[in-house]
Amino acid sequence: MNAVNNFYATYQFSASTKSEAEILAHSIAVEQSVEMPPETVPEEFKSYIAEVSELSNIGDNNWHATIQFSTGLVGSDPVQFLNVLFGNSSIKPNIKMVDVDRGFLSKICDGPSFGISGIRTLLKADNRALSCTALKPVGLTPAHLAERAYHFSRGGIDIIKDDHGLANQPSAPFKSRVQSVVRAVRKGEQISGKKTLYFPNITGSNSEVFDRFKLAADLGADGVLISPQLTGLSVMQELAAKSKLPIMAHPAFSGVFVNHPTGGITPELYYGLLWRAFGADAVIYPNAGGRFGFSEEQCMKINHQCRAKIAGLRTSLPTPGGGIDRKTIPSWLEKYGKETIFLIGGSLYQHPSGLEEAAREFQQMLHNDE
Amino acid sequence: MNAVNNFYATYQFSASTKSEAEILAHSIAVEQSVEMPPETVPEEFKSYIAEVSELSNIGDNNWHATIQFSTGLVGSDPVQFLNVLFGNSSIKPNIKMVDVDRGFLSKICDGPSFGISGIRTLLKADNRALSCTALKPVGLTPAHLAERAYHFSRGGIDIIKDDHGLANQPSAPFKSRVQSVVRAVRKGEQISGKKTLYFPNITGSNSEVFDRFKLAADLGADGVLISPQLTGLSVMQELAAKSKLPIMAHPAFSGVFVNHPTGGITPELYYGLLWRAFGADAVIYPNAGGRFGFSEEQCMKINHQCRAKIAGLRTSLPTPGGGIDRKTIPSWLEKYGKETIFLIGGSLYQHPSGLEEAAREFQQMLHNDE
Repeated sequence: MNAVNNFYATYQFSASTKSEAEILAHSIAVEQSVEMPPETVPEEFKSYIAEVSELSNIGDNNWHATIQFSTGLVGSDPVQFLNVLFGNSSIKPNIKMVDVDRGFLSKICDGPSFGISGIRTLLKADNRALSCTALKPVGLTPAHLAERAYHFSRGGIDIIKDDHGLANQPSAPFKSRVQSVVRAVRKGEQISGKKTLYFPNITGSNSEVFDRFKLAADLGADGVLISPQLTGLSVMQELAAKSKLPIMAHPAFSGVFVNHPTGGITPELYYGLLWRAFGADAVIYPNAGGRFGFSEEQCMKINHQCRAKIAGLRTSLPTPGGGIDRKTIPSWLEKYGKETIFLIGGSLYQHPSGLEEAAREFQQMLHNDE
Repeated sequence: MNAVNNFYATYQFSASTKSEAEILAHSIAVEQSVEMPPETVPEEFKSYIAEVSELSNIGDNNWHATIQFSTGLVGSDPVQFLNVLFGNSSIKPNIKMVDVDRGFLSKICDGPSFGISGIRTLLKADNRALSCTALKPVGLTPAHLAERAYHFSRGGIDIIKDDHGLANQPSAPFKSRVQSVVRAVRKGEQISGKKTLYFPNITGSNSEVFDRFKLAADLGADGVLISPQLTGLSVMQELAAKSKLPIMAHPAFSGVFVNHPTGGITPELYYGLLWRAFGADAVIYPNAGGRFGFSEEQCMKINHQCRAKIAGLRTSLPTPGGGIDRKTIPSWLEKYGKETIFLIGGSLYQHPSGLEEAAREFQQMLHNDE
C-alpha cells in the first residue's frame, strides 16, 4: 500500500502470545476493511485489505496494533470514517480503540467553527478559566427557568446551558423557553456588566435538530447544547459547518463507548479527539470525583486532546462536570489550568445565599487565577 | 405520581446490601429525571422526580430496579425518550438497562413500516425462512459488484444487501452502484423465476442519508441497509415513517451498547426492542458461533423481542449474521425457526462452485422447512 493514500488507527487487545496477537491484529485489519476471507478478495483489489504496520506488547498481555487503512475505504465521508475505524470492531468486547491518524482526521473532519479562541472572543475573557452552569430541573416553566437564568446572569456567570434533559416538553416548549431565557440573560447582563452566554439544548429527532439550531440563532441564543451520540455525530459536524453558533457537546447516551473495561474507545480519543473533530467547541465530560467515576488521569488526557495543536483543527474547551462541588474549584483550576470550562449544576443550586451569590463566588474563584 | 402518566424502565446493577441497592436505584431515578439533588427541586415540581417502584435481588448481589418516570419528561420525542431511559446512566459502568415499558414505547415510536408480513409479501414467501447475503468487498467497481449480484440472483437468493462498508467511495459511487446492481438483479430474476430484493447501504453523513434513501427508491432498489448507531436512531425512524422501502439495520458502531459486561443495554432490549421500535424491518445481529461471541441464549432472546406481539408495533425479522458457515444453516433453522433471515457473506464467497450454486444450495436448505 502507498503511505500517501493510507491512514492509521491503533487498537488495544489482550493476547497471551505474540502469534495470538498477530492473528488478532490481522483479524481487525480484515474486519475493518474488506470484511471477508482475504483469499476471496480478487487479486486486483487486495490493496483494500488493511495491514498491520506495528505490533507491540504494552505489558500484562496487552498489545497495541497499528493498522494502515487505504483512504479508498473512506472516500470523504466522516461517518464512513467512523465506520472504518470501529464499525464491526465495536461488537468485539476485547478490542479498544486507542489512537487515530490526526493528519487524516483533520482532512475528513472540519472540527469546531469557534474553538477556544472563538468562545473567548464572545466572552471577552482572554486569560482565565470559564464558568458554566446548567439550567434545571425539567418540569419548570419557561418563566421559572428564566428567573433562574436571570440570577445566574446577574452573578456574572460565563455560560448557562440548558440541562440536557430539557428538550421540547409541554412544561417548557423549546421556543418559549429560549425566548424567555434569552430575555432574562440580557437583563441580568445589565446588572453584572459582563457577557453571559446562553446555550439551549437542541437535541431531538433528526427533523427537529436543524430547526431548533436555526430558531436558537434567530431568537438570540449565544450557542447550543447537543448530545451527539443521540443525534448522530454528523449532525454536530453539519451544524458546526454553518459557523453560526458555538456548540457544546454533552455525553448523554455515549458513556458505553468510554467506560467499557476492555472494549470501546478511550475517553481521550472519543471525547477529546473525535468529538472535537466532529465540531464540538466545548466537550462536557464527567469529572473525576463527581458522580461518574472517571479518574483524574483520564480527565487530564481528555483535556490534553481537546487542546492539542493539530493543523487544520481548531481546539475545543474541555468542560468537566457531573457533580463538582463549588468549593473544590480552586484545586481543579490548579490541576486543569485556565483553558477549561468548569460546569457546576447541583452545587450552585445548593448555595445557601441563592443563585446570584453562587455565580458571583464561582466567578471570583476563576478570576483569582489571572 | 399518576400511573396513567407514567412509564417504567428496569435497570440492573450490583449491590452487596438491600440498603445499598435502594440508594443506587434512587440515584438512577434522580439522574434520569431531574438530575439534581431532590431537595433543590421546588415543591410544586417534585412530581418530575422519577420513583423506584420495585426492587428485587436476582441473585449474586445483582438487583433489578424498576423506575417510574413521568411522561412529562419525554413529551413526544423518541430521541428524548432514549435520553430519559439511558442518557447519563450510560456513563455509569455498573448500570445495565434490561427492560422498558412496551405500552409507552409503542406510543412514542412508530416501529417498522413493513414488518415481517410486509417483507414476506414483497418476496411472495409466506412460510419459510429467508436468505440474505452481503455484496462485497469494498474496492470493487459497480460492474464487478453487479456481476456478483447477478449470480446471487440467478441462484434465487431472497435478499442481497450491500456490505455495510460500501458507502459512496470513488471505487463504487452510490448512484452508479445502485443502478448497476438493480439492473443485474432484475436480470438474474428472469433466470431464477423468483424475486430477489436488493438493499443498498445508505449510511453516511446526515445530509446524505435522506438523499440516498430517495435515490435508492427512484433507482428501483427494494429496500435499504442502514447502521442506525452511526446515523442516529431517529434517522431510521424518520425514514421508516415514509413507508417507502423496508429497512434493514446493521450493528456497526453499536456493539459497545450490548457487549458491556456490567453496563450498557441488553442485546434483546437494544436490538430486539429498541431498534424495532425505531423502525427496523430487519435487525442484523452477530450470531452465536460466528466471529463475534454472542451466546445462543442471547440470540434467542433477540429473536423473541423482534417477533413478540406488541400492540401498535409491527414485528421485525431477526437477521443473524457475522460469520455463519453455510453448512450450519439447517441446525440454525431448527433452533431459530422460519421467522428469520439468515445472513451469510464470506461462506458463500468460499463456495467451490461459485456464487450462483452457493445461493441455490442456501435457498434449498430454507425450503426444506416448508
